[in-house]
Amino acid sequence: MARHFLSTLDHDSAELARLAAAALELKRRGRGAGRIPGAPDLAGRVLGLLFFNPSVRTRVSCESAMARLGGTSVALAAGSDTWRFEARPGAVMDGDTQEHVAELAPVLASMCDAVGIRKAELMTSGAQATSASASYAELARDEFLHAFARHSDVPVLNLESNAFHPCQGLADMATLQELLGAPRGERYVLTWAWHPKALPVATPHSQLLAAADLGMRVTLLRPEGYDLAPEVLAAARTRAEAAGGALEVTDDVEAAYAGARVVCAKSWGRLDAYGRPSEEARPAADLRARWIVDEAKLARGADPWFLHCLPIRRNVIATDGVLDAPRCAVVRQAENRLWTAAALLADRLGRA
Amino acid sequence: MARHFLSTLDHDSAELARLAAAALELKRRGRGAGRIPGAPDLAGRVLGLLFFNPSVRTRVSCESAMARLGGTSVALAAGSDTWRFEARPGAVMDGDTQEHVAELAPVLASMCDAVGIRKAELMTSGAQATSASASYAELARDEFLHAFARHSDVPVLNLESNAFHPCQGLADMATLQELLGAPRGERYVLTWAWHPKALPVATPHSQLLAAADLGMRVTLLRPEGYDLAPEVLAAARTRAEAAGGALEVTDDVEAAYAGARVVCAKSWGRLDAYGRPSEEARPAADLRARWIVDEAKLARGADPWFLHCLPIRRNVIATDGVLDAPRCAVVRQAENRLWTAAALLADRLGRA
Amino acid sequence: MARHFLSTLDHDSAELARLAAAALELKRRGRGAGRIPGAPDLAGRVLGLLFFNPSVRTRVSCESAMARLGGTSVALAAGSDTWRFEARPGAVMDGDTQEHVAELAPVLASMCDAVGIRKAELMTSGAQATSASASYAELARDEFLHAFARHSDVPVLNLESNAFHPCQGLADMATLQELLGAPRGERYVLTWAWHPKALPVATPHSQLLAAADLGMRVTLLRPEGYDLAPEVLAAARTRAEAAGGALEVTDDVEAAYAGARVVCAKSWGRLDAYGRPSEEARPAADLRARWIVDEAKLARGADPWFLHCLPIRRNVIATDGVLDAPRCAVVRQAENRLWTAAALLADRLGRA
Repeated sequence: MARHFLSTLDHDSAELARLAAAALELKRRGRGAGRIPGAPDLAGRVLGLLFFNPSVRTRVSCESAMARLGGTSVALAAGSDTWRFEARPGAVMDGDTQEHVAELAPVLASMCDAVGIRKAELMTSGAQATSASASYAELARDEFLHAFARHSDVPVLNLESNAFHPCQGLADMATLQELLGAPRGERYVLTWAWHPKALPVATPHSQLLAAADLGMRVTLLRPEGYDLAPEVLAAARTRAEAAGGALEVTDDVEAAYAGARVVCAKSWGRLDAYGRPSEEARPAADLRARWIVDEAKLARGADPWFLHCLPIRRNVIATDGVLDAPRCAVVRQAENRLWTAAALLADRLGRA
Repeated sequence: MARHFLSTLDHDSAELARLAAAALELKRRGRGAGRIPGAPDLAGRVLGLLFFNPSVRTRVSCESAMARLGGTSVALAAGSDTWRFEARPGAVMDGDTQEHVAELAPVLASMCDAVGIRKAELMTSGAQATSASASYAELARDEFLHAFARHSDVPVLNLESNAFHPCQGLADMATLQELLGAPRGERYVLTWAWHPKALPVATPHSQLLAAADLGMRVTLLRPEGYDLAPEVLAAARTRAEAAGGALEVTDDVEAAYAGARVVCAKSWGRLDAYGRPSEEARPAADLRARWIVDEAKLARGADPWFLHCLPIRRNVIATDGVLDAPRCAVVRQAENRLWTAAALLADRLGRA
Repeated sequence: MARHFLSTLDHDSAELARLAAAALELKRRGRGAGRIPGAPDLAGRVLGLLFFNPSVRTRVSCESAMARLGGTSVALAAGSDTWRFEARPGAVMDGDTQEHVAELAPVLASMCDAVGIRKAELMTSGAQATSASASYAELARDEFLHAFARHSDVPVLNLESNAFHPCQGLADMATLQELLGAPRGERYVLTWAWHPKALPVATPHSQLLAAADLGMRVTLLRPEGYDLAPEVLAAARTRAEAAGGALEVTDDVEAAYAGARVVCAKSWGRLDAYGRPSEEARPAADLRARWIVDEAKLARGADPWFLHCLPIRRNVIATDGVLDAPRCAVVRQAENRLWTAAALLADRLGRA
């Protein structure tokens, strides 16, 4: 049975915390070093990457991690470089799709030692917004990803699906460990912010879980109507409490920032109008001004670190003042994508 | 003189069979191993890849093979990543084309140790069909590929042109050796099947030749009007007979399947209406039902293996029942693209 | 402070000549060798490549050079593979752009050991011409590139901006050293030629500077109105004279070719109508015929070598007779892109 990495929910909190800690150890040894000293040698190992959406950090972190372990990556832009893929069982493929995941997955698994997949709706370049092809509940089943994983006997890594972005979650865990030393019981705020497009929820899902898995006292701060998926909220609460933390959900901006050690910002669209922008009651201008992360809000916290998964729209999600301040850790958080990718790849491919 | 790999017809049957056998030996040693034990070390060697068409298996097999030999690949999507290329001698280039193969080829040959090229018409993504720019006879001259090869002093590998797909042919030879042990004299059927688009003939050409080169008793099964190119049929017959086999062409579905040890399915368009879909008498619905590979047809064979080059449209070319059965070898056949690419690259670059 | 390579003007002539000579030494040792004997080992080092424009030589030379030094490249097609980027300080990013260079640059710098960037206007594929978004003077500030460099603590390599193409300049220096042995004081002609599209000036700028830095007697031969940027001309004159050479500008075709040891051809658009093709007084047909490089013109020189940066439109910029003659060195010049890239990467990354 291949050890996939599809969601942090498939792994227990302690295992994730160990992976994050291993990443920080690789960072300590590997920074500026070329090949990471003491890490597994992945020479001749191949990471296949299938991107249905744009990427900067994910692509470069995976390829750079493989290179620093001695391995090789092959990145395909699905749709332009490749054929169109089918995931539905029993499909009569006389239309748009040309290759079924039942063949695609075992074939790539026979040529690669692991396969990373980014496939999510609503992830678009520029100002262009798209409509989702189905409700969030349907999209969250991530049919292609899970069908691929079932048909693959090498590890499949989720590089962001509709429901989860576990690589971001793992990087956030490493970053919280790095910034706080012992994050358990510390105050962490994940705050919604206004954005010109309705964005996916996979990243905030995995970020919320990251803080929960570390046993932090987690506050999800969002306007009414912008809740994350209930099954994720429930899991985050359970895991936070099991690890010595807590989860609260609020729309009280002032109260939420008070005492925060970490503020992580992210925008996402309403789940009840997911990918149907015309039906979404657009956040009004006062939401924009009220929810942007600025220096005044951060001043209510306990000298908090500022996090964001990037890319971030400056002066929309957070002000220049926040992003250019010494307590802004977004670049460090992004760099940790590299070291957590390395830790994950070393763990999955190093023993093979 | 560079040892190009443009068509299996440029090589004798025994040499091809040796390459296929070498591939199976690399597979035996290299599976799950990262760097292939005992294979040539291609560290610092560079394979340039020029893709004018989509690709999954070809791209990943070449890049993975190079990596497992210690080498590096550079893949360019011609047209989007690059300039537009000219192949006609004497062209006055004041139009669409920006770089002549007379410069492109020696330049890439100076930077790469081998160059793979995929350039064929009618290979499109999704449901989109295109018209061919010329008759099949003209396209089959593969002007760009051959001009490139003339101007290159490093090996040029044909990754599918209008006329041939020799890497698929080599992989099929290895697969037939692997499945049958001694394929000589065994019954092999290459059957046409219906497809919503008119597809190229390069792959069935090279597949037919593969079975012929192994001295199999080869049946080309296709509806009247769907013959492959006469010069390829003639060569396949000559080579099959020289190797102890035979070639017959028929449209008798029931008779053809009888006693088959291997059934390989493929769709292709009529050569007399190549790339002019509006002129092609579209195969009617009864052709679709009559020619699909299903379990009933395969039951007439001698417990035959099922092959297809992939991507395959499920329930159009072959049924789910065929593809999910234990005698379906399409994934193994695709995996052999990796090992035959490795054998070819080791042969061409390992002695340099 | 990272040692960027943004323009040859940032480096003194002697340092550039040493880098070019080092490239020829790598060529001597590395040709046909895979890993370059005696060169620094860049195993685990990663070169990030960000292409906003098409590329053949630049992309392949950089990736091949990294491979021959043991390192790895990650190439992104900006815009299709990635998000849209912002470079303006203080931008309120609620429009088309999604990521600011203030984040992008340090993030890539944290994952890569060097970053190459190609970002220029008017570089288009095929026959398509585009309009520039601003005047040449504004574009020549190369805002994105310089902002990226300010935010990066790893070397940034300019792979062609609006103002300069220093990698081409370095390759031309190596080529002139290789062809002439001691280029100082020799006659070098950079001649304009007609082209169906108005092309950028970055390449002729860096080519003119290359000959100047070697102390050659440089002639810029162009029709009235087609001057290069005055600040570049002034710098070229100063540097040529300091190195024992000279610079003259003329439109006298016959006189310019007389006694030339090297003729380098290039087309570019008028700076006073940069990227506004409808306003440009299009060069008339007599310009086309008068300025093409042909055998008769070259016969006026001192058995001159012919150079061009490629891609070249045959029978538009130069005739087949010129390009197919033994004194045509365009392929050698292009190959030197590989060895100068290797010398640059070895210099920048080999000591890290």
